[in-house]
Amino acid sequence: MTYTLVLLRHGESQWNAKNLFTGWVDVDLSDKGRAEAARGGELLQEKGILPDIVFTSVLRRAITTANIGLNAADRHWIPVKRSWRLNERHYGALQGKDKKQTKEEFGEEQFMLWRRSYDTPPPPIDPGDEYSQADDPRYADIDGENPATECLKDVVERLVPYWEAEIVPELKSGKVVLVAAHGNSLRALVKHLDGISDEDIAGLNIPTGIPLLYELDESLAPVEPGGTYLDPEAAKGAIQAVANQGK
Amino acid sequence: MTYTLVLLRHGESQWNAKNLFTGWVDVDLSDKGRAEAARGGELLQEKGILPDIVFTSVLRRAITTANIGLNAADRHWIPVKRSWRLNERHYGALQGKDKKQTKEEFGEEQFMLWRRSYDTPPPPIDPGDEYSQADDPRYADIDGENPATECLKDVVERLVPYWEAEIVPELKSGKVVLVAAHGNSLRALVKHLDGISDEDIAGLNIPTGIPLLYELDESLAPVEPGGTYLDPEAAKGAIQAVANQGK
Repeated sequence: MTYTLVLLRHGESQWNAKNLFTGWVDVDLSDKGRAEAARGGELLQEKGILPDIVFTSVLRRAITTANIGLNAADRHWIPVKRSWRLNERHYGALQGKDKKQTKEEFGEEQFMLWRRSYDTPPPPIDPGDEYSQADDPRYADIDGENPATECLKDVVERLVPYWEAEIVPELKSGKVVLVAAHGNSLRALVKHLDGISDEDIAGLNIPTGIPLLYELDESLAPVEPGGTYLDPEAAKGAIQAVANQGK
Repeated sequence: MTYTLVLLRHGESQWNAKNLFTGWVDVDLSDKGRAEAARGGELLQEKGILPDIVFTSVLRRAITTANIGLNAADRHWIPVKRSWRLNERHYGALQGKDKKQTKEEFGEEQFMLWRRSYDTPPPPIDPGDEYSQADDPRYADIDGENPATECLKDVVERLVPYWEAEIVPELKSGKVVLVAAHGNSLRALVKHLDGISDEDIAGLNIPTGIPLLYELDESLAPVEPGGTYLDPEAAKGAIQAVANQGK
């Protein structure tokens, strides 16, 4: 008896295409991102991995990826659950900033620290900033103040309780679970699943739009560490491209 | 204290455009239907009627209408619940048949009886028919056999328990509830809300893509019988067009 989990990182967004830090800013998919989402759904159907329930963040690019992908897989009718706990990492004061300019302004070392260190968040965003979500009604259910910045450790800490409380019970009931989310929320989940160290997680990239299949054993350990991409060749090329971002 | 309910009939489908009986056949929206859905969402935003939760059927044309409309209203992130109990009326053996041809074959009287009588269902569809849903996995949770045909009375009987058990509690908790569904499931709901007789419901048509707002009092009676369309002029024209279908 194994449990079946599929992770899907949203396709290219309009700000991925422009090389801007996005975080919790609710930008839409690009046309390329929509095509990636449809291809992701076709892969699910081709491989016969048919989700029984989908979890998404509360951000448009993940929601739309799930909608398009499930429609392509003829699974648009399954139950949906959404949570801010699956959101992309909040990028703090960097939200809306150009990645290349940020690197030039703060230097390679600081830039890489913000992008890849496990526990160093960028400076917090000002609540009055046009790219702040301080007053966004979708976060009204957060206890206390909304995050104003996050490091990957913060993402792990807000994501794992949701994983345990909401996603694991669905897996244990025998459902095929799809999680449509973001580069860093999926890295946080993979870190947890594969037991990756705080240091090694820096080197892990998840490509957009290619479903990543995990068969989990009864203790929820991956049968195949790192999981299996449904299109391994495409994943290989795309992982390299993500690693080159900001270079 | 009133409760706020918004009903949204899906935009034009590919089979509406071709004048075929659709029922539970899972056809997609036409381009016109997608535009109607977006306009419906814009109306919600313009009028400041912002749904906190959405209910849909398990059919693509209602799901996509909700997705497009909520995206246009910037409410794509709200919780979603889906149920076959919000589906269009099952049209039995008429599913996939041309409306005009059906009228010529069976005569005006029989045609109108199937379309508009409260308690005369069309003949049941054969489980092996290409337009049967006998083996569709999305209906695996139905107790007993899947419906093979329905009259409007059958729709009322499967819809009202869902209304009471799932939708009413959300209204009573103070949420603005959007129901994205179909001509006949929304007629069934309006019949229940407004206390319309079995005879008079035959004359009620609900236009596509125009949100219909109901403010309900504490006993769930409509403050304004029949509710209020968010674009009353467009609704008037569209209601006439629906009434002319099949003529």
